[in-house]
Formats: sequence, structure tokens, C-alpha cells
Amino acid sequence: MPQYTAPLNDISFVLHEVLKVTEQDIPGFDELEPELTSAILEEAGKLAANAYAPINLSGDQQGCKLVAGKVVVPDGFTEAYQELCEGGWPALDQPEEFGGQNLPTCFALSISELFASANHSLCMYSGLSHGATKAIYAHASDELKQTYLPKMVSGEWTGTMNLTEAHCGTDLGLMRTKAEQQDDGSYKVSGSKIFISSGDHEMTENIIHLVLAKIPGEPDGIKGVSLFIVPKYLVNADGSLGERNEVSVGSLEHKMGIHGNATCVLNYDDAVGYLVGEPNKGMQAMFTMMNEARIGTGMQGYCQASVAYQNAVEYAKDRLQGRAVTGAENPEGPADPIIVHPDVRRMLMDQKAFVEGARAFCLWCGVLEDKFNRNGDADAHGLLSLLTPVLKGFVTDKGYESATNAQQILGGHGYIEEWGMSQFVRDVRITMLYEGANGVQALDLVGRKLGAKGGKPAMAFGMMIKEFADSLEGDEQLSNLVAKPLMSALSDYQNACAYIMQYGAKDTNAALHGSSDFLHLMGHICLSYVLGLSAKAASDKLAANEGDTEFYQQKLNTVQHYISRHLPMTRMHLKRMQSGPDTVMSPSVESF
Amino acid sequence: MPQYTAPLNDISFVLHEVLKVTEQDIPGFDELEPELTSAILEEAGKLAANAYAPINLSGDQQGCKLVAGKVVVPDGFTEAYQELCEGGWPALDQPEEFGGQNLPTCFALSISELFASANHSLCMYSGLSHGATKAIYAHASDELKQTYLPKMVSGEWTGTMNLTEAHCGTDLGLMRTKAEQQDDGSYKVSGSKIFISSGDHEMTENIIHLVLAKIPGEPDGIKGVSLFIVPKYLVNADGSLGERNEVSVGSLEHKMGIHGNATCVLNYDDAVGYLVGEPNKGMQAMFTMMNEARIGTGMQGYCQASVAYQNAVEYAKDRLQGRAVTGAENPEGPADPIIVHPDVRRMLMDQKAFVEGARAFCLWCGVLEDKFNRNGDADAHGLLSLLTPVLKGFVTDKGYESATNAQQILGGHGYIEEWGMSQFVRDVRITMLYEGANGVQALDLVGRKLGAKGGKPAMAFGMMIKEFADSLEGDEQLSNLVAKPLMSALSDYQNACAYIMQYGAKDTNAALHGSSDFLHLMGHICLSYVLGLSAKAASDKLAANEGDTEFYQQKLNTVQHYISRHLPMTRMHLKRMQSGPDTVMSPSVESF
Repeated sequence: MPQYTAPLNDISFVLHEVLKVTEQDIPGFDELEPELTSAILEEAGKLAANAYAPINLSGDQQGCKLVAGKVVVPDGFTEAYQELCEGGWPALDQPEEFGGQNLPTCFALSISELFASANHSLCMYSGLSHGATKAIYAHASDELKQTYLPKMVSGEWTGTMNLTEAHCGTDLGLMRTKAEQQDDGSYKVSGSKIFISSGDHEMTENIIHLVLAKIPGEPDGIKGVSLFIVPKYLVNADGSLGERNEVSVGSLEHKMGIHGNATCVLNYDDAVGYLVGEPNKGMQAMFTMMNEARIGTGMQGYCQASVAYQNAVEYAKDRLQGRAVTGAENPEGPADPIIVHPDVRRMLMDQKAFVEGARAFCLWCGVLEDKFNRNGDADAHGLLSLLTPVLKGFVTDKGYESATNAQQILGGHGYIEEWGMSQFVRDVRITMLYEGANGVQALDLVGRKLGAKGGKPAMAFGMMIKEFADSLEGDEQLSNLVAKPLMSALSDYQNACAYIMQYGAKDTNAALHGSSDFLHLMGHICLSYVLGLSAKAASDKLAANEGDTEFYQQKLNTVQHYISRHLPMTRMHLKRMQSGPDTVMSPSVESF
Repeated sequence: MPQYTAPLNDISFVLHEVLKVTEQDIPGFDELEPELTSAILEEAGKLAANAYAPINLSGDQQGCKLVAGKVVVPDGFTEAYQELCEGGWPALDQPEEFGGQNLPTCFALSISELFASANHSLCMYSGLSHGATKAIYAHASDELKQTYLPKMVSGEWTGTMNLTEAHCGTDLGLMRTKAEQQDDGSYKVSGSKIFISSGDHEMTENIIHLVLAKIPGEPDGIKGVSLFIVPKYLVNADGSLGERNEVSVGSLEHKMGIHGNATCVLNYDDAVGYLVGEPNKGMQAMFTMMNEARIGTGMQGYCQASVAYQNAVEYAKDRLQGRAVTGAENPEGPADPIIVHPDVRRMLMDQKAFVEGARAFCLWCGVLEDKFNRNGDADAHGLLSLLTPVLKGFVTDKGYESATNAQQILGGHGYIEEWGMSQFVRDVRITMLYEGANGVQALDLVGRKLGAKGGKPAMAFGMMIKEFADSLEGDEQLSNLVAKPLMSALSDYQNACAYIMQYGAKDTNAALHGSSDFLHLMGHICLSYVLGLSAKAASDKLAANEGDTEFYQQKLNTVQHYISRHLPMTRMHLKRMQSGPDTVMSPSVESF
């Protein structure tokens, strides 16, 4: 059975040495002293490794079942979830007024990594609830907040997001679910929603559905979409649970992975709902959830790659096959462990470098979010808006590739479910599809984010890379290792931006045929930038002769590996963009 | 439910216009007139689309079951397999003396594509049997041939390959299965084999297992491995079936995909076996099967990509979401079909170009095999030996990527098993792992094939590309479209070869850390070369104003797409190789 070990040192390194959280002038960051974060990470790591990870494979095998209208989750899920709540983990970065601990997002993300790595499916129950809680907090009336938030923050109740319908996913303007206002101010919600993650279960006594619906008579399209709270059980004035609301599970989806999460068709049949915020402002409220969910999804992308890497390493150390080409390294044994083979090591190092870079990228985005939320830093918000589709699209694409490479290390055993590698690949596959398929992320990036605010964030991104590269001048090792390759990649970024601007106005298709290439081009730069920060941090420690020399040398090695072998892909992506849209756009529909 | 349409025009185009089979001076090729091949392809296409494809999804859902020691295959598999045999399809390219039709390999591969695309799992039962038949034909005594081949050629019996044991897959020298000679000249075979595809079933009345085992007292390692025929039921002198042999199914594997194929643990317990060829020559005999199997596996890599592409196109034409950025293209409808979006088209065109290139690559390899088998052409054999790991490794890696992209087109629906896209991805995943994991292919290519015969095939490959590029001189369109990019990629190939030669002798790890990159570098050149041949064929037809103009223009478009967007990857792979082995080889085992 696959194992999971919480990578505590690697996470602490990113928080304290790469992102230097305690040095940031952001309210609450002063609390993030290494003693505190280490203690919390260690506790979370234990829960993840001992309660979440051991039921990951069995959860995949058992899946969720719909029995007499009720969802039965896999064995152990309810107990592990209760442990999560008893530890106060769902409340970590929630508002204090509703029982939360108000810890920074960057730190909460580092904790979430542990649970998402250990058990993606189980982690989704609390993960989506977290987003729903934030949306209610940001947009709902005080009365609704008082009614729902305390128990959602504590994890006693979970929440869901209801957007998709069978005929509309990306294009929510086509939505058919209706909400008709009643005399008491509440609404009656009717319609059918699909792909509702964590849509039903008996792990908690209530589930709070956030549902997008149209109020009859309001504008067509997404301008007429409103957001509603539809609780599974109605809540009485005294906070006790009332009768069952008219929401039922139509069916459970049979999916490629995340079998332990109940992906439901939910049917609303005159269900009682409460408007969140103002009518027709549903999309804005939903974007609160969606932006958070996209960062969380980016994180999930590297989480499965991380646990898959760990298990691939163990296999590569254990499995005896063949001999090292340079002479036996295990002469007493019948063969050498396969980690002696260059191509096996190459695959492992690709995975290790990706995971370390993606983690730093994700936690950096967490810091940007904290800068905006806690300091009102508009520049940080602009940069985060630009980077969110990159984090979501690039890290999930590459996370799938990385998990696939980990599976590859096991040869035929990688294909056998009991080894668990297949599950990592199947589970991470969803991250490329949900919360906006990665093509939609690319469209968002090129079509919306790149030109936002007159292109200021896009230019600031380039400036930031340049300033960092400049700051390494004088350090010959880091100049060669990091600064020069980054500047070369930056010129690809600038040329790519120029291509998009040149064609964007007169030929939108020319700008958009290369949108995924542009997203990947940026993704490589983002990972190399944060890895560059890691290299700087490691180099400083080595120069000062502080800490674990081997640890820091390996950090430098990882950075060199990624920057020399993966960053040059920016040139390739630029070339693809510059090859133009003709071969893509000119063929007739029939010719495909 | 997903559909499959046999791509008859595309296959005929490759056979007749790209490879010009009837113009080849190879015995038997004169039979391959378009009228004949079209008629045969059409019949096979019907069987594939109407009998094989409809039970693909249900076969995945039902899987194989082990009931009272017997394997139960999914519903409809037995009937569809019988239709295959009744049509004489298993005998297509088998020797005439045992009931075969002796048609060329290149044509047989084009037929196999149809069945492998329609139902990978079901197709494996006859596919492995085909390789076993060839090995017996090439190595066994006349008596064994007479006893086993007629019914294997007709498909009345199937065959299997038994190599892997729990502790050894790639390194067969570690094998423990034993074969002890008996007084009557037969052997008693004992041991346990794993991952035996099509290992047991009741679809045929007998199964002929080819088993690698060691004769006690013979040399250690692979030098002491012999090959045995171990029939499931013993065969009497008159050809009737005798008693059950001592081979039993230990268990069925639970796999990521190919659920419809019975992947067995087979236990041999003093089972009666017959030596094939000479003692200790088992590996050579097995290589007969393995080389064929590797070409077949390369084919499977693009087959699932092909059927996945077809279904992605249908979805992209049907699914209404959003509007074209350049203005509504379906103004009467609520939204435009998603095929209007540039990134959707980009993904589809990537898939289409890959499938067309991979098909031509595979059938070209078939022609090389025919040149060797029918003309004794040693150069063709040398080239095929060089290309086999490229075909197997590159096409399966890219086939998985391509099928994943097809799944991506469906968004969330791609993740739902009923849509069938998940199965295509899960099924094709095995092709990267079996018949030698792709890292082993890369090792075979760089460590063995590249330097074989003093490097003559590797040099001939380069010469062939150059000659083709030279031949396009004077044709401005094809020079720009094909020749110049090919020559640029060829210089990457030459530099990569030089890198390997420079470091190969003094630092083998430096040569091998980039073996997968080298394999992919060659793969892109191979696809671009055969696509270049396609471009030339299409261009000639257009110049002569012959045939379907739209069809040939689309062929040119596909070639341009692949060569402009994918061939430049050769530079990236070269850079990776040139970045050297340090970051891969220097870290200690513990630091991973």
C-alpha cells in the first residue's frame, strides 16, 4: 500500500527561507514564527499521514454509494473527518468572529497540502466547504452569516458549490435553475445541478448548498444569475435543525477517479433558498469561491505529484533489476536497485523539481492573497489575478504529467491498482478539468487577465522577474544558474506578449490559438522564479555555513535541474505561438 | 456511448499514396492493389465498428472475473472473437503452409489498427496469439509446428507470452521458473508467472502458453533461459485434446485499464512443456515475439488516440457553450459549438496531426519488416531495429498525451466513465508500460541500437532524411514546409548523436541520462519525415488536379501543423541532453 510522509522540512523551507513570512509586513504574519508553524505543521502532518492517507486506497476501491437516497461514504471517512474538525483544522484561516483562527492564507495552504496529498477525495469535503464559507462571509447578510457560518467554520456542517447543469458548465448564462421569491422573502429553488462535489453525505448533520439560479423576469444570460443558500435541512430560528429541504440526490457519477468523493446530481424541487447578497450578482459572489477554488486546485495538482513521487522513490530504492552501467552498486544482491539507472533518476528528479517549484509557486500566491486581504495591496491583487489561471492550469497539467512519470517508475506494477500509483494519476486528472478546464484558464489569462488594468500586472510581472535577476548580479553562480536563463525566458515572455498585442486587436483568433502555450510559458517562468528564490535562500545559508549543508546543496541541485531542463520550454511555446493560427483556424468544421 | 468509425480513407492514403505499396519491389506487394486493400479494409472496418467497438465500454465496466478457477470474459467478447475467426482475420499475414494468407505485415498492421482502436482489450487476445504463432513458426521443430500452428493460425486456439515473474520483469536473468527434462523428451515446468495478458479464458478450447524457464544445471542469468510450449490442454497424437495440463490461474490483476483483458498470475506446477528450439536460446526466440509486440504496441499507442480524437471531434461539434470571439457562428442557437474556440481547435489539430503521423510511421515500419522478411534486406532490418524502440516509446508516450487531450475537450464529462474518454486514456496507459517500459526502450535505443553495426543504421537514418529533404529542392512550398525544418531537426539529431558518442565511452551515465530525450528527438523526426512524405504525395495530387482537393489540402495542413508546432521540440530535447547528467547523477540515493 502506498505511504505518505508529510514533507515538513520542505514546506518550512518555503515559508521561512524562500518567502520569509515573518519578515513580511502583513498583519498576522508576525505570528508565523518557525516554532509555531512547525508545531502546527507537525500535528497536521500526523493527522494526514495517520488518518487520511491510510484510507485513500480503500476509499478509491469502495467509492461512494447511493443507498435509499442517502450517500454512503467509504469506510473511515466520517471518523477521519471528525478528527479534522476536533483538531479545529477547518477553522484555521476563517474569520475570528465566527470561531476561526484567522491565520494567513499562505500558511493555511501549506496545511491543506498535507491533507490533499494524503487523501484528495476526503480533503474535498472540507475544501469546498471552505470556499462556500468564504463566499457567505463576503456576500451574505449578517443574519445568514450568523445562522450558517459558525457551524460551517467549525466543520459541523459542510458546504457545496452548485454551478453546472447538464447543458452548461463553462457558459453559465445558459442556466435553467429557477428561484421564485416567496412572500416571506425566501425563494423556492427548482432545477437540476450536476457534478456537485461533496454533494451529499451523512458525515455532518447538515449541508449548506450554494446554488446559482435565475429569478424569473430578470435579465437573460449571466447578468441574471443570483446566488442562494439552500440548506439540506432547514435551520430553525434557535439554530436547531428543522425539516428536510426539497433537495435530493438524483445519482452519483461514475468517475475516472476521486471515487471517495460523492459527485452528485442534485435535484431541487421547490427547495427553500435564501438570496446571498443582491439579485443578479450571483456571478460575482461565485467568483469569490472560484478564485479561491482555483488556487486550491493548483495546489491539488502538485499534491498528488508529491505523494506519487514519494512512492516512486521508495520503489526505485527497493526494486532490484539489472545492474548499473558503470558497475554493480549492490554486488552482494542479485541485482541493483533501479535508482542506479540514469533514466529512472532523471524521471525522479523531474518530479522532485516540479513539486518543489509548484509548492513555492502556490504558497507565494497565498502570500499575494494575504497582501491583498490584509493590506489591501492592489498590486498584489492584480498580480494574483494574473497568476491564478497560470497556477491552476500549469500546475495541474504538469502535476498530471509528474504523477504519470511516478507511475512509470513502477513499470507494470504502476498499472496495478493495489500499488496506488494509478489512483494518484486518476485523482489528479480531475484538477485539469474542474474549476474551469485548463483551456478556459488559458482563455481567462490571455483574453482577460493579460490586458487587465491596461496591462499593468503583466508588466509588473516582467519587472519583478528582471529585478530579481538583476539582484543576483555579482553572484557568479546564481547569475549563471538563475539570472541568465530567467532573463532569456523573460525575453520569450515579452515577445509572446508582443505577439498577442500585435494580433489581439485585429485577429483575436491569432491571439487565442496560442493561449495554452502562453499559459505554459508563464508557468515555467513562475516556477523558475520561485525556484530562483529558493536558490538564493540556499546559497545564502551555504555561504554563511548555517544549517544542513546537504539539504541546501540539494535545493540548489533541484533548481539547476528545473532551470536547465524545463525553463527552455519557453522558447518552444513562443515558437508555437508565432507559428500562427492558420493550421488551427483555417480548416472547416467538417474536415476535423 | 463513444463511437468508432474506421478511418479507411486515411489508411488507404498512407498505404497507396505515401508508402506506394504496389510500387515496392517486395514479393507479395503486387497483390496490394487499391481495390483489394479497400475491400478488405472495409470488411474489417465493419467488424471493428459493429462488433468490437460496441462492447468496448461494457467490457471495461464488467471486466474479467475469476469464477471457480475459470476466467469469465465480458459479455459479447466470445461472440465477437468468433466473428473475427470466422472472417479469417487472425490468419491474414500468417504462413500459407499453416492456413495463413501470407499478406504483407504493413497491410496486416493497417487491419490491426481497426480492431485495436475499436476494442484494445479484446484485440489483445488475438494480438498476443499472433506473436506466439510467429515465435513457434520461427523457432520450433516441425512436429511442434504441425501440432500447434494450424489451430493458432485460424484462431481456434490462442497463445500467450510468459516472461515476467513477481521479482523480475526487465531483468529476466533473475527468473526462477524451472523446466526439468523427462525421459520422453518433454519437460516439467514449475513456477509462477505474472502479468500474463490473455492468460486464460474460455473463448477458445485451448490456449498455448509460451513460457520462459531455466533448465537446472544450465548457465545462470539470461544465458540459461529456454523457451517452452505449455498447452492448457495437452494435445493427443491425433490432434484431439487430452487432459488438462498443470497450469492454473492464481489470480486476476486489478488494473487501471484494459479491464476486458484477463491479466493473470499463472501457476505452473509440473506442467508438461515442450522445448522450442535449442536449450538456453529462449531469449532469442522471445525476441522474435518481442520485436513484433513492440511494433504492435506502438500501433496501440495511436489507436486509442485515434478513437479518442473521433469522439472529441463529435463532442466539440455538438456541445454548445459560449460564443466565438469573432462573432456568433450559430446565432439561432443558445450558444456556439465549442469547436469555434481556437484552443479547442488547437487541441483537436494536435491530435489529428499526431494520429496521422503515427499511423504513417507505424505502417512504414511494417514495410521495413516486409523488406527484411521477404527480400532479406539487411539495411531495412538495421533501420527497423533502430526505429522499433522509437515507435514503441514515442508513439505510446504521445498517444497517452493525445488521448488525454481528447478527454480534455469534454471538460467534466471527460472524467465521467459513461462518456468513454477515461477508458481510452486508461487503456492506452498500459502501452507505455508493457513490452518493455518506455525507459527501457530509450536504453535499448541509446545503449544498443544507436551503435549497432558500427552505427551504420543510425547514419543511414540521417542520410535518408537528408536525401528526402534534398529531393524537395525546387519545390518552394515543400522546401519551406518540410525540407528546411527537417534539416534543422536533423542537425539536432546529429548533435545529439555526437553528444552521445563523445560521452558514451568515457561516461556512460552522461550518454544515458538523456536517453528518453533522444528517443523523443528521433520520434519527432520520424513523424515529420513520414508526414513530409504525405505532404509530397498530397502536393503531387493537387498539382495534377487529381482526386479530392479538400482531402489533400487538409493533409498539407496537418503536416504544416505538426512540423511547425511539434518538430521544433528536437531543439529542446537536444538542450536537455546537453545540460548534462550532473543534476541527475550527483545526488545521493538518500537525497531523493
